Amino acid sequence: MIYLDNAATTKPLLHAVEKADKYLKECFFNPSAMYKNGIETKKELEIYRSEILRFFPSFYDITFTSCGTEADNTAIFSFCKRGNFITSLGEHSAVFECFNELKKKGADVRFAPLNNDGSVNTEELLKLVDEKTSFVSIVHVNNETGAINDVNAIATQVKKKNPSVIFHSDGIQAFGKIQYALSDSVDLYSISAHKIGGLKGTGALIRKKKLNLNPYLIGGGQEGGLRSGTENLFGIAVFAEAIKSHLNCINENYQKVLDLKQLFIEKLDKSLIKIISSNQSSPYILSLSAEGLRGEVIMHMLEDFGIIIGTGSACSSKNPHSRILKACGYNAKTLDGMLRVSFNESNTQEEILFTVEKLNECVKRLKGIMKR
Amino acid sequence: MIYLDNAATTKPLLHAVEKADKYLKECFFNPSAMYKNGIETKKELEIYRSEILRFFPSFYDITFTSCGTEADNTAIFSFCKRGNFITSLGEHSAVFECFNELKKKGADVRFAPLNNDGSVNTEELLKLVDEKTSFVSIVHVNNETGAINDVNAIATQVKKKNPSVIFHSDGIQAFGKIQYALSDSVDLYSISAHKIGGLKGTGALIRKKKLNLNPYLIGGGQEGGLRSGTENLFGIAVFAEAIKSHLNCINENYQKVLDLKQLFIEKLDKSLIKIISSNQSSPYILSLSAEGLRGEVIMHMLEDFGIIIGTGSACSSKNPHSRILKACGYNAKTLDGMLRVSFNESNTQEEILFTVEKLNECVKRLKGIMKR
Repeated sequence: MIYLDNAATTKPLLHAVEKADKYLKECFFNPSAMYKNGIETKKELEIYRSEILRFFPSFYDITFTSCGTEADNTAIFSFCKRGNFITSLGEHSAVFECFNELKKKGADVRFAPLNNDGSVNTEELLKLVDEKTSFVSIVHVNNETGAINDVNAIATQVKKKNPSVIFHSDGIQAFGKIQYALSDSVDLYSISAHKIGGLKGTGALIRKKKLNLNPYLIGGGQEGGLRSGTENLFGIAVFAEAIKSHLNCINENYQKVLDLKQLFIEKLDKSLIKIISSNQSSPYILSLSAEGLRGEVIMHMLEDFGIIIGTGSACSSKNPHSRILKACGYNAKTLDGMLRVSFNESNTQEEILFTVEKLNECVKRLKGIMKR
Repeated sequence: MIYLDNAATTKPLLHAVEKADKYLKECFFNPSAMYKNGIETKKELEIYRSEILRFFPSFYDITFTSCGTEADNTAIFSFCKRGNFITSLGEHSAVFECFNELKKKGADVRFAPLNNDGSVNTEELLKLVDEKTSFVSIVHVNNETGAINDVNAIATQVKKKNPSVIFHSDGIQAFGKIQYALSDSVDLYSISAHKIGGLKGTGALIRKKKLNLNPYLIGGGQEGGLRSGTENLFGIAVFAEAIKSHLNCINENYQKVLDLKQLFIEKLDKSLIKIISSNQSSPYILSLSAEGLRGEVIMHMLEDFGIIIGTGSACSSKNPHSRILKACGYNAKTLDGMLRVSFNESNTQEEILFTVEKLNECVKRLKGIMKR
């Protein structure tokens, strides 16, 4: 199997799972328990916390959540209380639908338009910011096109217009992949484990220490009162290990994946398949369109060769056309043919060569250029 | 090690973890993906869903969550919109603190008092119900005393006074332990995996099909739009297996644990240690007080013999005295000496005999009756 849908989810890193295995076996204690085993478990949780925080500037803290979606929901619903709230049309549903919910409830919610490549139109975004804006959320890497928003720069510009804004970024497709040092302007940053070799069921909200986050899940007061629910230490331990594995070789991985993407593009029959992602996009995501064909059909044809690619965000795959790519301005013909290839550092050049070859062939067959 | 803090968390069932292991390895796909592997993964999720639902009346459906706390929060914040809301003083923090939050926001929140054993005073509860009551939440088994509330009967009585009430019960310490068929009067029921040999990070909200639940985590629309976030299939698979293991021998386990509890009580030096749990309580929980001593000290003394018991709910262990036991009417002397022994079907008679022997000895030593 050639797996090229790594933006949907990644295969858990075996060494990380094996290292955390003890939390499923002998170290199963409740970290809130007051006896030695409980206290020891809690200490280990705090070690993972500080191991992860080492990769962020010292003014950040981390609150573990059950997923990226929970991190996004927590950030948004904690701070969207008064004034107006701004996001972009390029957000993942975990952000976008929260803003829609606020809108339904009568809040003043504003959506910034996108550039053709899926990045946010910063100029238009800034026009939306006024003295009543209290919260802005802009995705770091677009999960469909891979477009990178320079969230530090955007946050700085937003705060220049209104210094009281709380700035959040969904970093789920960026973290562990793109070398990027968050600046003081970014208040909140969501990350997810299963996009970088961790497990589904684990995420986190990176937050400025001085910020007063309101908890979204309320109860026993775990996570310093900010996120109740018995801590999922197994998931957190795998997450910490996956983060270390990725962050310690982020540049090597980046270069490796960039080479794979470039090889893909080089071999692609560009007369038949349009490249949607811009040159500046994340190397981990390549958005394509076999215009005039149905992406889904191509995806299934490639499956017969053991090749797995996506047709867009897995999370929105129930809708015929991608909301985000529509917002980029593409027409129905282009939207129909959308494909998303998303890479991982474990993919090989051989896999890429085989995939592009088969992709070119499939499209030719469907267009009647090549016999079936 | 003799582990008797099973109400805080249980050791994951090895066979369940092993059975679900494939979701950490080859079957890691995103269940929302449209290719065969994704669809297959989704199908397996639906099989687990129906395997669990088999243990509930057919008018229920299940929404998977990241924990019992999330299930409680979802139920409460989904339905506490208008009118007044009622709960008891015996609730787990995951319910109690949500009601406190509603109260802080100005809602009309009413707390029913407890009987001496920790069960809710139903007569007083019913007095609180009026035509404006829209939501009532009563815990099934009290997590500190093990007191069982007959939630079917309570829900029926509540609805007799006001048929439009939505009735929720936190069933986390009951489910898989107490044989109990929920009736049509109970609209929502929270369960958690890690209390019955499943994993931390998995819970569920059992809900009447005809009920319109508002999602609490919003985003990609997983779980039929009711709980967004990529599905934690590993956790769900372990949960399903743990449920089957428990529910298929619920009566055997119940009898076994009841025998252990009775043996414990029989051997206990009742002249030194007071039994708080009533005879009608869940056999899985035994609340005790070494009045005049500090429970914590006894807990640590027992640790030296490899025995692990709790001093109350792990989730509230930061507070000097248990909020729930205070609400039962106990004085400081009794509250100081609180201990919670919570059993599991895997505990043995030998473990119980050794534990009670050492417990009696420790208390005697501390009271100066026996030399150190």
